Amino acid sequence: METLLLSRKDVAAAIDMRDVIEGVKQGYMAYQNGSLDQPPVVSMVMPKNHADCDVKCCYNQENDAMTVKVAALFEDNGVINDLPKMMGSVLLYDSKDGNLLAIMDGGLITGTRTGAAGAVSCELFSRKDSKVVAMFGGGGQARLQIKGIKCVRDIQQVRVFSRYPQELPKYKEDIEKELGIEVVICETPAEAMDGADIAVSTTPTADFMADVSLVKPGMHIVAVGADMPGKNEWDPEIFGKADKVICDSIPQCLERGETRNAVMTGIISEKDIFAEIGEVLLGNKPSRESDDEITVFDTTGMGVQDNVTAVAVYEYAKRSGLGQRFEFI
Amino acid sequence: METLLLSRKDVAAAIDMRDVIEGVKQGYMAYQNGSLDQPPVVSMVMPKNHADCDVKCCYNQENDAMTVKVAALFEDNGVINDLPKMMGSVLLYDSKDGNLLAIMDGGLITGTRTGAAGAVSCELFSRKDSKVVAMFGGGGQARLQIKGIKCVRDIQQVRVFSRYPQELPKYKEDIEKELGIEVVICETPAEAMDGADIAVSTTPTADFMADVSLVKPGMHIVAVGADMPGKNEWDPEIFGKADKVICDSIPQCLERGETRNAVMTGIISEKDIFAEIGEVLLGNKPSRESDDEITVFDTTGMGVQDNVTAVAVYEYAKRSGLGQRFEFI
Repeated sequence: METLLLSRKDVAAAIDMRDVIEGVKQGYMAYQNGSLDQPPVVSMVMPKNHADCDVKCCYNQENDAMTVKVAALFEDNGVINDLPKMMGSVLLYDSKDGNLLAIMDGGLITGTRTGAAGAVSCELFSRKDSKVVAMFGGGGQARLQIKGIKCVRDIQQVRVFSRYPQELPKYKEDIEKELGIEVVICETPAEAMDGADIAVSTTPTADFMADVSLVKPGMHIVAVGADMPGKNEWDPEIFGKADKVICDSIPQCLERGETRNAVMTGIISEKDIFAEIGEVLLGNKPSRESDDEITVFDTTGMGVQDNVTAVAVYEYAKRSGLGQRFEFI
Repeated sequence: METLLLSRKDVAAAIDMRDVIEGVKQGYMAYQNGSLDQPPVVSMVMPKNHADCDVKCCYNQENDAMTVKVAALFEDNGVINDLPKMMGSVLLYDSKDGNLLAIMDGGLITGTRTGAAGAVSCELFSRKDSKVVAMFGGGGQARLQIKGIKCVRDIQQVRVFSRYPQELPKYKEDIEKELGIEVVICETPAEAMDGADIAVSTTPTADFMADVSLVKPGMHIVAVGADMPGKNEWDPEIFGKADKVICDSIPQCLERGETRNAVMTGIISEKDIFAEIGEVLLGNKPSRESDDEITVFDTTGMGVQDNVTAVAVYEYAKRSGLGQRFEFI
């Protein structure tokens, strides 16, 4: 049986943000429909290498695909070597016989489906006239969030802050060139949040950057970076101030996400969480209801996002003759 | 960066049972030494396809390897198609930079390291003069257990019982030809257990086959098949009758193994478990202490077994020029 091998370059050629946004919506609804066996995320931590790794699995009855994704962050990569910080792989199996259909580099899949998740939340919860995004972090995910949000809102300006300001001139250049959106490099979190309609955090920090006073009525916050205990990008008080807290998966956000910090500090309790995003997509709960609401979307990333994205990439790559083939069996 | 791709045939050429037995011993001791980040096993169940899948991960500081293994059992394979029942893959990463060193077919790795686990337990706990093995099941693992045990004991006869007796003539032929050990095909569990020094179970059954009356003094039992809640190969009363119950990982066997069934039915409690096998290997607890003891080894399989086995296979394959190469990044 042949397995399709897709390099990072092949995946880049086969992945399309708009398709992934649609796939992620389907995936969130499949999760609500009980169509998934999506076990808890497991993590490995490699402190001496400044690295951590998540493994996310999903069997999706709706597309017959079983996926296992390894997504690791090696913080020193790019500094001590030429490798990307985001490493990892996605394995796509046919759930009917266990055949390994494809192995693809995972960096861009994680990045794109995470960008798509932010975009889905912005389509539902950011004000329709949102024009300014505050961005925390200037890495790959900070690029893909903007790429995703641009698909659903007419963004005119990105105000970016990073603890590693040396990465920001290149960030500005890339976003302005690729997406045609003005980027303002900010020296403080307050400067980044000034006038923002949407605020997105994409860092692995344990010390939050923006305190509650910077969050204004009408703002939608996308909390992306915190995906395991110990990470914390937002002042937990923001969850108390928010009108609606939305999670991708409530149990997972309580275990690993920004929501965990807010619940553990007692600022909100589990019952204060408004919805899982799939409930809103299915129309079982409302999206934004007024221009003044403060909304927070906490995403820790679910296996089904990788599942639907991997299937889309595989199908495109097969049609387009991308990649190489190898017979494992 | 190049990734080495190893097919099932390549792995077969690169794997050696004696090396794997030594590797598994090192792995069990590394677990005791606290050298691992080995998150809980996660499973996906695909009932409509008669399949289940485990994912086992391990970061091992002692060899700098991070591994993720996908091991699935597709019960209909070989019947409705020509694929093996055991499907899956092992990903081997360099934990220093996240580079994907190798992807190898996982079937034989799981099988061999599981056979090696049984062998390690027999070396420590079966009587030195053990000659007869009762075997439940006639599939791949029933072969590899014998292959492993033969490395540590002078086995003269295998007495095999299976709920699928049609598989046994081929089993007998393979074992007699490959290992030179006489195989007696048995029509009942009692017949298989008659005169056995070691009894090994390798099936995914939920209805146990051998009741406590068949277990005689001096016997060592290797419980391999039950590796998730719901599976049960041995009468839980056997755990009460045993002098020593040994686990690969106590928490994991309590969650997923045969030990779980014995504890949940109240026949033993957690404190009745004698040891983890690594404690015995390190000399912190004794192995078999008399010819009359009944000993039970419950193994649910740990990520570190895959980790050490994958490293051994990779190193051998590199030296021998096996496999093909692909650049994912």
